[in-house]
Amino acid sequence: MRESEIIELFLKHLRKQGDLPLGDDAGAIRLGDEWLVATNDMLVRKTDVPDIMTPEQVGFKAVTMNVSDVAAMGARPIGFLFSLGVPADVEGSYLEGIAEGIGKALEFYNVPVISADTNEADDLIIDGIALGKTRKLLTRSGAGAGELVCVTGDIGRALAGLLAWKRNLEISERTKKALYEKLLEPRARVEEGVELSGVASAAVDISDGLSKELHLLAEMSGVGIEVDAEKLPIRREVFEAAELLGVDPVEIALASGEEFEIVFTVPERVLKGLKIDCTAIGRTFEGSGVYITTGEKRQEMPLLGWEHLEKGVKGKYRTLFR
Amino acid sequence: MRESEIIELFLKHLRKQGDLPLGDDAGAIRLGDEWLVATNDMLVRKTDVPDIMTPEQVGFKAVTMNVSDVAAMGARPIGFLFSLGVPADVEGSYLEGIAEGIGKALEFYNVPVISADTNEADDLIIDGIALGKTRKLLTRSGAGAGELVCVTGDIGRALAGLLAWKRNLEISERTKKALYEKLLEPRARVEEGVELSGVASAAVDISDGLSKELHLLAEMSGVGIEVDAEKLPIRREVFEAAELLGVDPVEIALASGEEFEIVFTVPERVLKGLKIDCTAIGRTFEGSGVYITTGEKRQEMPLLGWEHLEKGVKGKYRTLFR
Repeated sequence: MRESEIIELFLKHLRKQGDLPLGDDAGAIRLGDEWLVATNDMLVRKTDVPDIMTPEQVGFKAVTMNVSDVAAMGARPIGFLFSLGVPADVEGSYLEGIAEGIGKALEFYNVPVISADTNEADDLIIDGIALGKTRKLLTRSGAGAGELVCVTGDIGRALAGLLAWKRNLEISERTKKALYEKLLEPRARVEEGVELSGVASAAVDISDGLSKELHLLAEMSGVGIEVDAEKLPIRREVFEAAELLGVDPVEIALASGEEFEIVFTVPERVLKGLKIDCTAIGRTFEGSGVYITTGEKRQEMPLLGWEHLEKGVKGKYRTLFR
Repeated sequence: MRESEIIELFLKHLRKQGDLPLGDDAGAIRLGDEWLVATNDMLVRKTDVPDIMTPEQVGFKAVTMNVSDVAAMGARPIGFLFSLGVPADVEGSYLEGIAEGIGKALEFYNVPVISADTNEADDLIIDGIALGKTRKLLTRSGAGAGELVCVTGDIGRALAGLLAWKRNLEISERTKKALYEKLLEPRARVEEGVELSGVASAAVDISDGLSKELHLLAEMSGVGIEVDAEKLPIRREVFEAAELLGVDPVEIALASGEEFEIVFTVPERVLKGLKIDCTAIGRTFEGSGVYITTGEKRQEMPLLGWEHLEKGVKGKYRTLFR
């Protein structure tokens, strides 16, 4: 079964939903005049973890991916929970590394652990859960026409790093370090999400690649999106890797998942006042569809990215490149 | 690694904890003048699910086990989240059954689903998370000396049912139905937990068997507990199965896990005013240890139950009976 089929099957039976219907980075329920935001994301070692990741990096990332979803809703994280699935033959040092990584991440994000559970399982699994709160919720559906589309930080390094590793690319240590940093030690944009809460009209974090997130945002907001390829914040290390790979760096940037950057829309006048590291990459317009312009050429943006459980594809690192 | 070793290893690294330290049925953080309660519990098909359970029952139970932990803290459940681990070859009808079960449970407990996630994994896994809120938290550490120890409903049917099934006992359909009802379709004591919130001094739900929960409660509250075996609410169907098995029905009642009844302590004067179905089974005293009296004989209560990942034992259905 494809992931989309599984989701559809469950949605059919889950009639009781929160105050915000399913479909955003996180769910939310009203608590007085605030929103309680909650999200969960499971990490399966075999399919989600490249071999080069240390257990500390795995543990840290299990927190990051959930905190990022909370931040993309404009909420400040207030608690973390996790369930472990532990194979009987797991090495104690690997588990300890995961514990260290989770502990470091909780200190980095200043979030307490509220509850934890361990179980025997065939796979090593960390199911992380983050809770957050905010007065003003940021969703994927709030974008209006004529607004700017922006993204925090830079994009593409996670996938470029993965490909550089898989293809054993000959790149300088400096380039490798820059790419691996994003692949192995991504950080959630917590302060950015909190600051955007009051001012952005819509937001989403990049879990499945910019192209997929833009398509979702356009569809859920009922607007079209036009992106200028030349404005995408792509670092030179991604260009370097792309050249060696013989692929378009823009495609890498659009397909690269688990970047944990925040994509958001704002009215133009608001952008100047923002104190966060971000780049305007395009605009929303009345209509539908997602387009990308490269020089004179305007075309529909291809839907790049991966879908878990896709037939015949093991794991989630499926992109157009394999 | 034993579960206790894994927990110890993680506790060493998880210095940032919630407003209530780890160790209760659920965690909690303060939100204004209320407590937000959160818990998570993973269900692994291979080790946690007897073959006779239908997928609907599995889905329902994934909600029940989490809602029960929230209720045992005196909190009303306000939201549910879940992560699925799905093997590539799972039957669609099995998954649909699980979806139905979760959906029915959400309606039964009147709780909305807030967030859900699916992933490929080797095992079929449901990691459920429940959130709740309360003004007054019930913990395992609040019992005072000289109070009554009580339990809701009856105990022992879950394990008696499991043994009846495993040993293929020759019992009447009526007895089987009574035992299987508790084994396959246990229900969380939500209203009981909410009512106890204001009046009980300590509470815990029976996940790992009454004996283990009583030991925890005694230790964390710093009191001793004395139980009268003859007062244990054991139904005649458990006696029936115990006789055929050639074991002591009291041992079954003490070891039976996933009963989801609530064990609590209250001052004697409070008990009369309670409008819930419960039985006083013993008393707390100044001191330590857990004792059980049968007629004239008083002895230390053995620590019955199971521990996941115990060396050489697959799964969690480890009791003194196998």
